[in-house]
Amino acid sequence: MEWITVDDLNDIATGATLLGTGGGGDPFVGKLMALQALQKYGPVKVLSVDELDDKAMVMPVGAIGAPSVSNEKIAAEEELFAPVEALKDFFQEKTQAIMPIEIGGGNSMLPIACAAKMGLPIVDADAMGRAFPESQMVTFFLKGYQPEVVAMADSQGNRIIYYPKDGEWSEKIARSITDVMGGNANMVDNVFPGEIVKECAIRGTLSLAKEIGATLSRLTDSASPVASLLNKLKGYSLFEGKINHIERNVEGGFTRGRTTLSGINQNKGEELEVLFQNELLLAKKNGEVVASTPDLICALDHETGRPITTETLRYGARIHMIALPCDPKWRTEKGIEVAGPKYFGYDIDYVPVEKLMGEKVHV
Amino acid sequence: MEWITVDDLNDIATGATLLGTGGGGDPFVGKLMALQALQKYGPVKVLSVDELDDKAMVMPVGAIGAPSVSNEKIAAEEELFAPVEALKDFFQEKTQAIMPIEIGGGNSMLPIACAAKMGLPIVDADAMGRAFPESQMVTFFLKGYQPEVVAMADSQGNRIIYYPKDGEWSEKIARSITDVMGGNANMVDNVFPGEIVKECAIRGTLSLAKEIGATLSRLTDSASPVASLLNKLKGYSLFEGKINHIERNVEGGFTRGRTTLSGINQNKGEELEVLFQNELLLAKKNGEVVASTPDLICALDHETGRPITTETLRYGARIHMIALPCDPKWRTEKGIEVAGPKYFGYDIDYVPVEKLMGEKVHV
Repeated sequence: MEWITVDDLNDIATGATLLGTGGGGDPFVGKLMALQALQKYGPVKVLSVDELDDKAMVMPVGAIGAPSVSNEKIAAEEELFAPVEALKDFFQEKTQAIMPIEIGGGNSMLPIACAAKMGLPIVDADAMGRAFPESQMVTFFLKGYQPEVVAMADSQGNRIIYYPKDGEWSEKIARSITDVMGGNANMVDNVFPGEIVKECAIRGTLSLAKEIGATLSRLTDSASPVASLLNKLKGYSLFEGKINHIERNVEGGFTRGRTTLSGINQNKGEELEVLFQNELLLAKKNGEVVASTPDLICALDHETGRPITTETLRYGARIHMIALPCDPKWRTEKGIEVAGPKYFGYDIDYVPVEKLMGEKVHV
Repeated sequence: MEWITVDDLNDIATGATLLGTGGGGDPFVGKLMALQALQKYGPVKVLSVDELDDKAMVMPVGAIGAPSVSNEKIAAEEELFAPVEALKDFFQEKTQAIMPIEIGGGNSMLPIACAAKMGLPIVDADAMGRAFPESQMVTFFLKGYQPEVVAMADSQGNRIIYYPKDGEWSEKIARSITDVMGGNANMVDNVFPGEIVKECAIRGTLSLAKEIGATLSRLTDSASPVASLLNKLKGYSLFEGKINHIERNVEGGFTRGRTTLSGINQNKGEELEVLFQNELLLAKKNGEVVASTPDLICALDHETGRPITTETLRYGARIHMIALPCDPKWRTEKGIEVAGPKYFGYDIDYVPVEKLMGEKVHV
């Protein structure tokens, strides 16, 4: 992928929604913003991580907050670009590119809109390889790199620049500001030079999102789109079921909740429980853990295989819940400490999904 | 007063604690910081408002948060100066002086420390003529001037600069950040040029604080220090009593509470209830309002006349509660809207203390 044009947005947003494990912002809203920017400013050049200049800076862009809020409170163009504008003259080294901070429905689209507006290329990578609810859950943090400066903006016209002590303080401050800003804000943090991006970023995730999206659009007529997808992604089928319960709670700048499904087809008579905090984090079948963060848990529409966000899970919907192994960077001791089940208060040890699924075939 | 030296600190802190109506930060902690700075950097030149250059900027300095926290979590020098350092190059116009944002125990002292460190004069004025709990409760705000930029710092090393939409948003953001910073932070906001300070500031409040302090230190042997003080300040005696109840609650970056007193001497058989949010805000004698914000309610030690902060009100203490009329700027429609009883949720109309006290003599 050398350029991103308006024709690519649907596929990228679909694939990124899957990789975003139900979170990472609303794909529909993000798509509208990216579409508008691409139409206004033209297509965006895509750089691979290897093409980055070692010294020039890469600016990660994303929205922060509760998806339940951002779905209804759509960012204006000015709000989206303000944090980038605020920081673009801060670093003496030139900004060479924009990057998604995470691959997720909306958060794959906002950086495209920003890159178009700024006339900068976008890096085909992100700092999570998925979406995560907290801002220190980035591969930079795993390697000990802390954000020197963070910029945020809201729909009211408030603009904030802060110099956090470290990544954990950055999250605390960002979350508190997000909360007072009404539960959603736009943000630039973890601005680093190309050499650090080369060391830390998870590569090719925009291309992967586009590929997944393209596969799904080709497969809508297929007898088993989910099976084809799992085969392609080396993923695992966790459960086929119908949602019989869904609860959400917007607090402290997050949407937290849980959903339960009663089994259909191969899972008839069984139950699946999935817990989420913006993203789907833990899945238990009949009380046993079958997948947990940092591995990816994704809800797909049972018929079409299209990914469903935590915000659009609805009572009665027929879902195929799948899991994908996370990037190896998250399976280190530090990775599990930062984003494993215990960090979120689930009192279990992380076990890779491949192990949990044992000898089970992919579908 | 042309210079502030170490010899002036006790008197200023005492008088400012009285004018701070029990809030405005801990005078003892503030005094230690000012003392250290004056010893290290020398005395501070005092400018009257009239001496200010119209165009150069004046930087108001103060701490924000719950006094219950700042008393125990004393700011390091670096934490105190960081917000000033952060903004001193922001304005193209030169910074000509430091100013207390409010006259209160600690918040009269921190600007002295900052002025000493920066080698800048201090303005003999403040933006409240007393202390108030929220940051938009300044005379600049009453005239429609909004802070363009605000800087904050905490003991962890976090530094924040923000550009609020207006004064009310500035308070919301500051309070939220203060809360996440542990309940206390240092702050510079409402930076304006000399001509706006001339229009808005309440003049001579540092001198007034020093005078009150000097009067009290001379009067400790007097038979009736409170009577002499009331006479000097044209204040009103509200109640003589003994504290029989005190409650405090630290939440959302404030200390809120109430105290009740049973009468002694002229008030034998009567009861006084006083409500506070950092500062003393409302006094009711036998259920009837006798004084309310924005007028000043001050708790004095019954024997010595020395002012007592809301933090040091203790069960069993003998108190002389007095009231002083606030500056006329607070008695306008806007002033009462911004800092009158209704703003704090007390369902009463503001009545000036002179009217409430009727024909009663000062003591």
